[in-house]
Amino acid sequence: MGRAHSNAWRQVGRFFDVPAEPRLKVACGRDEAALKEFADRWGWEEVETDWRKVLERDDVDVVDISLPTHLHCEIAEAAAKAGKHLFCEKPAALTAAEAERMLAAAEKAGVVHYLNHNYRRAPAVMLAKQLIDEGKIGKIFHWRGAYQQSWGADPARLLNWKLRKATAGGGPWWDLGSHNVDLAHFLVGDIASVQAMMTNFIKERPLEEDPAKMGEVEVEDAALVLAEFSDGAMGTFEMTRFATGRRNRHTFEIYGSEGALAWDLEDMNRLEFSSNDDAEHCRGFRSILATEQMHPYAGNWWPPGHIIGYEHTFVNAVADFLQAIDSGDRITPDFRDGVRIMKVMEAGLESAETGRKIAL
Amino acid sequence: MGRAHSNAWRQVGRFFDVPAEPRLKVACGRDEAALKEFADRWGWEEVETDWRKVLERDDVDVVDISLPTHLHCEIAEAAAKAGKHLFCEKPAALTAAEAERMLAAAEKAGVVHYLNHNYRRAPAVMLAKQLIDEGKIGKIFHWRGAYQQSWGADPARLLNWKLRKATAGGGPWWDLGSHNVDLAHFLVGDIASVQAMMTNFIKERPLEEDPAKMGEVEVEDAALVLAEFSDGAMGTFEMTRFATGRRNRHTFEIYGSEGALAWDLEDMNRLEFSSNDDAEHCRGFRSILATEQMHPYAGNWWPPGHIIGYEHTFVNAVADFLQAIDSGDRITPDFRDGVRIMKVMEAGLESAETGRKIAL
Amino acid sequence: MGRAHSNAWRQVGRFFDVPAEPRLKVACGRDEAALKEFADRWGWEEVETDWRKVLERDDVDVVDISLPTHLHCEIAEAAAKAGKHLFCEKPAALTAAEAERMLAAAEKAGVVHYLNHNYRRAPAVMLAKQLIDEGKIGKIFHWRGAYQQSWGADPARLLNWKLRKATAGGGPWWDLGSHNVDLAHFLVGDIASVQAMMTNFIKERPLEEDPAKMGEVEVEDAALVLAEFSDGAMGTFEMTRFATGRRNRHTFEIYGSEGALAWDLEDMNRLEFSSNDDAEHCRGFRSILATEQMHPYAGNWWPPGHIIGYEHTFVNAVADFLQAIDSGDRITPDFRDGVRIMKVMEAGLESAETGRKIAL
Amino acid sequence: MGRAHSNAWRQVGRFFDVPAEPRLKVACGRDEAALKEFADRWGWEEVETDWRKVLERDDVDVVDISLPTHLHCEIAEAAAKAGKHLFCEKPAALTAAEAERMLAAAEKAGVVHYLNHNYRRAPAVMLAKQLIDEGKIGKIFHWRGAYQQSWGADPARLLNWKLRKATAGGGPWWDLGSHNVDLAHFLVGDIASVQAMMTNFIKERPLEEDPAKMGEVEVEDAALVLAEFSDGAMGTFEMTRFATGRRNRHTFEIYGSEGALAWDLEDMNRLEFSSNDDAEHCRGFRSILATEQMHPYAGNWWPPGHIIGYEHTFVNAVADFLQAIDSGDRITPDFRDGVRIMKVMEAGLESAETGRKIAL
Repeated sequence: MGRAHSNAWRQVGRFFDVPAEPRLKVACGRDEAALKEFADRWGWEEVETDWRKVLERDDVDVVDISLPTHLHCEIAEAAAKAGKHLFCEKPAALTAAEAERMLAAAEKAGVVHYLNHNYRRAPAVMLAKQLIDEGKIGKIFHWRGAYQQSWGADPARLLNWKLRKATAGGGPWWDLGSHNVDLAHFLVGDIASVQAMMTNFIKERPLEEDPAKMGEVEVEDAALVLAEFSDGAMGTFEMTRFATGRRNRHTFEIYGSEGALAWDLEDMNRLEFSSNDDAEHCRGFRSILATEQMHPYAGNWWPPGHIIGYEHTFVNAVADFLQAIDSGDRITPDFRDGVRIMKVMEAGLESAETGRKIAL
Repeated sequence: MGRAHSNAWRQVGRFFDVPAEPRLKVACGRDEAALKEFADRWGWEEVETDWRKVLERDDVDVVDISLPTHLHCEIAEAAAKAGKHLFCEKPAALTAAEAERMLAAAEKAGVVHYLNHNYRRAPAVMLAKQLIDEGKIGKIFHWRGAYQQSWGADPARLLNWKLRKATAGGGPWWDLGSHNVDLAHFLVGDIASVQAMMTNFIKERPLEEDPAKMGEVEVEDAALVLAEFSDGAMGTFEMTRFATGRRNRHTFEIYGSEGALAWDLEDMNRLEFSSNDDAEHCRGFRSILATEQMHPYAGNWWPPGHIIGYEHTFVNAVADFLQAIDSGDRITPDFRDGVRIMKVMEAGLESAETGRKIAL
Repeated sequence: MGRAHSNAWRQVGRFFDVPAEPRLKVACGRDEAALKEFADRWGWEEVETDWRKVLERDDVDVVDISLPTHLHCEIAEAAAKAGKHLFCEKPAALTAAEAERMLAAAEKAGVVHYLNHNYRRAPAVMLAKQLIDEGKIGKIFHWRGAYQQSWGADPARLLNWKLRKATAGGGPWWDLGSHNVDLAHFLVGDIASVQAMMTNFIKERPLEEDPAKMGEVEVEDAALVLAEFSDGAMGTFEMTRFATGRRNRHTFEIYGSEGALAWDLEDMNRLEFSSNDDAEHCRGFRSILATEQMHPYAGNWWPPGHIIGYEHTFVNAVADFLQAIDSGDRITPDFRDGVRIMKVMEAGLESAETGRKIAL
Repeated sequence: MGRAHSNAWRQVGRFFDVPAEPRLKVACGRDEAALKEFADRWGWEEVETDWRKVLERDDVDVVDISLPTHLHCEIAEAAAKAGKHLFCEKPAALTAAEAERMLAAAEKAGVVHYLNHNYRRAPAVMLAKQLIDEGKIGKIFHWRGAYQQSWGADPARLLNWKLRKATAGGGPWWDLGSHNVDLAHFLVGDIASVQAMMTNFIKERPLEEDPAKMGEVEVEDAALVLAEFSDGAMGTFEMTRFATGRRNRHTFEIYGSEGALAWDLEDMNRLEFSSNDDAEHCRGFRSILATEQMHPYAGNWWPPGHIIGYEHTFVNAVADFLQAIDSGDRITPDFRDGVRIMKVMEAGLESAETGRKIAL
């Protein structure tokens, strides 16, 4: 993840007219040797193994938190207190309470805070938002979201931080679901209540620190969540690491009174759109390749028909983040969205544990 | 629906070697004029407006019940008692209790009973079953089912029998969900518990009998259901009449330890299949066009690459039904499956009403 | 092929309001035993092994010629002379000269003549024609056609009538190309000149009549043809029996000044359509499922979203043929189209043999 | 195009372990103001408006020729003579004779020369090559290539260097066809003869230098080319700037005795593959997402399922180019391939002009 972030800071000024060219001042981590190699490759000027020292520096304006989830809250709070703008990886935190502390700290300090649910900034997703805002979808009836990976189905995969509650907060519901819920928040709106089922297909795995020993998997392998949105729309969220054959399939479908949309991260430059404005004999889902000059962000990249990839969403995000610092405007998603997402996460978990519908 | 059934009885002997050629003896209905026109067109020898008289005839061996749901139970019971074999439209009945009465009557009478969840007999679906039975999917983790239509989103659609509880039993959960649950039973297995949300987007509609007046829609417009299967798999079922742009999109995805499958009724001759047996650098979902001679039913139809359509599933079903009468073997799905499906329907409804997980 | 034709005559009156219900009077063929079995299955009233006797009958109004290509001309001429309306399989004949004789005989006799390039009557193809006629495609720049099968790649396939010049006229250029050229004529217009390459990948095959012996394949295995249309459009035609993995993939793409179309027989109910009328940020190929009531022929079949298959195109054709007999209007494609197609076939062959562009 | 090249030189060391980190020494161009802005943005150390001065410098090892086609030959010859390694944009030159001069100069100087047909280095394309080399496709029967754009259909597009013979050499046959022919050379082999048709749909356009005046379009708008390969395979090449709705659709299909492949630049991370090794009831085109660690180049980028885009092919090419300089091994495509491609270009043009098949 450090690669995608470093790349974005390096690349943004090449493709966007940014108010300030970022300097890759200091890379921070625990393993000094690995850190130095990383810094050399990516052009970080210095390295530092004590993050608190970074916060004390006057020549650091932005802190990019690209760490396991359990480390977000403490560092974000301290960095905000030190007056640093915050660019933070998702999911926001282990709990809604942590996310609220992060938000409070950032708001108190008056810093810009951004939570990196980067898929909002795929051109095709931002185009979906535009079409919704233009009224082309009308009143929304349905959200159908999924994030399907398959690596979990391999029992040899080690029990790492992503499979432990204390470090990850949750399983695919936290890791993948937070992305999908963020898109639902962005494109549909607030969620009023949820019902959920979660399960583990593989209960024990070899320990990362000692693969000869087995340890208990502490987070779910799959999470299925139903939702009522505040405005009456109905939604589904399906998150799994056990969808054999799917590597990173992050999808949504939206159905409204005037039209419908569909998107798939594995073909992320396309947006499917069906419109009731079309003549009846000509209706169908059209496949818009969001690489035209007038499509969001696309004009900063390549000519029509030349697609972009995964890391470009990070560059697009950094461009907007730098603008937000310059303008003082809010950028979203931010820690406020993080709180909102975390509350949905916790409600989903509670529903799965109790078998009851949980209102937010 | 009478057209699709009549067609199947007429066509079966042309494409299958059946033990007996069905005779279209007597068409039964209430509107005599319309009935006569229908019988003329489809070659029914006689018409009858009193179904009880049909059951008294010695020259009728099979009764095909293609009627609104609330009429299934009484007629099926009486027909079974009269020793007629039963070919019955779906959903089985208004309630599980009704379905149980139908099953008891049929079993007591020793007649063949078939419930027409016809999509099992699309070649691509039967091929899915074959691949599962061959072990190519392994232990199943996930079922992801949906049946999406869009006609409900038009507020001018009249309040007909499909939108009334007394005649339909339920909305898309009964009408469409019963199909999807049947496929899940067929391909995955029994369901142990469900959680559901259902909603109405349009509460009132013009009455069919008097469009100047409005009446309350008594069944749900959309039903979202989560399920735990008895063997540990997790499932989703999404049924709606409000999926703008989707006309009759009935889909499933199955993910297992060895492979995965996907199917879509709107492109019903294809089965998507991903296999972990493939070399790692060659893995992906392959699109099998189930029109080869060795594919289920396909050898009875046309040369490779020549697709079949909706009504062929009825012909395939009639072929198997005639074989079952001849052999005395059980055909599935039957009323036993109908009971099983109705119990899931009722559990889903109860979950939606109570907000609680319901065990079956 | 006799099955698809018999089925169409039987089915047409069920789904269309036809001016007369066809009677399956007499099935004609050489092998009496097989013929009787066929007639029994499909409901032909009588059988006859001498086709000339059929033509002498007063109770036969229509002759359906569903035979190897070399038999078309003589029978069509004689049947026309006997005043029979003609429903004739494609390709029209071995040569343009033969097709011209067929046309002359039919015109002289004043009978209705229809050449069964059935794919014109897939609803999605007829919709393509409608969109062109509505001006939605504008001036056409490009036709891109292909008909790809794979059975030829199996060297064990026997040398049957389809692989002999005397009985088939040509290889895939005749067999498959005639279909694709017919669609190009229908949707774009006349062809002014062609350039072609043809080849054989397998030169010898086991003889059908004695598989222990090998015989020379007399027709091409693949034909690639370029065309200039009279109105300036450019076209390609790719016909092959060696497209591994493609079973019956018959496709076209059309690009015009206002829009574009694409179609694939293996998913024959869909038409892809891109329109320059769409807002620039919403352009893309939309996938129209041609199963709506207002789509050509679709209203005669099933509800929206319920697809039809291969043989329905025959039923649609028979419906139009019966109307043409009743009204006296021309139906297309007819023998006039057959002449037009055959001239393209012959020009393509001449180009392949001479390496020169051939004007029509 | 300078952006994509500059980006590749900057990025290569971040994602690949290269033998030497490139320095962006001097950017060269005619418009000094624009050049300075460009150099600032991309990190070029110096600018220079006289390319001959660049060649005199000792601190320049590599010359990247990213210029209109008519400028390639003179600069490449001079740069080679000056001992510079050459990274040259496509198409190689205006004529085969020019390409031969470039090749002769590079070989005489012993420098590494690379011709940037970058699509070879899309992971999915390189995977296609791997599958062919592994024997999974067998003897190849068919190449079906196309490169379709739509910008030409707008008559307001100005007559720029790409539409003039003296600067571009040809139209889409040179510009787009050279890419597709390069892939055919790479994946199938040498071409023995061609037949072609070319046309202009728009004969005159506003002049770039004075849009009030019209000038003649000197190169074709569309080129359709048939080819016999030396080993007996048959190919088609369709190049056009008039394919409404297609923005940058560069595709190929390959059919062989053991399997088949298909690729589309607009979804460039996927390779479609059908294999006769599959069990007969499981055959179909599978969609391989070439983002796995073992896929060519993919391991240098992101985790499985995270796609890359257009410019990554340039980075992959630069990585291989730097390795070639270090190892002294040939990199392909190079000027030798350029000669090969240019001969096909010229043969195609001659065929279109004469209406005759042209042997190479």
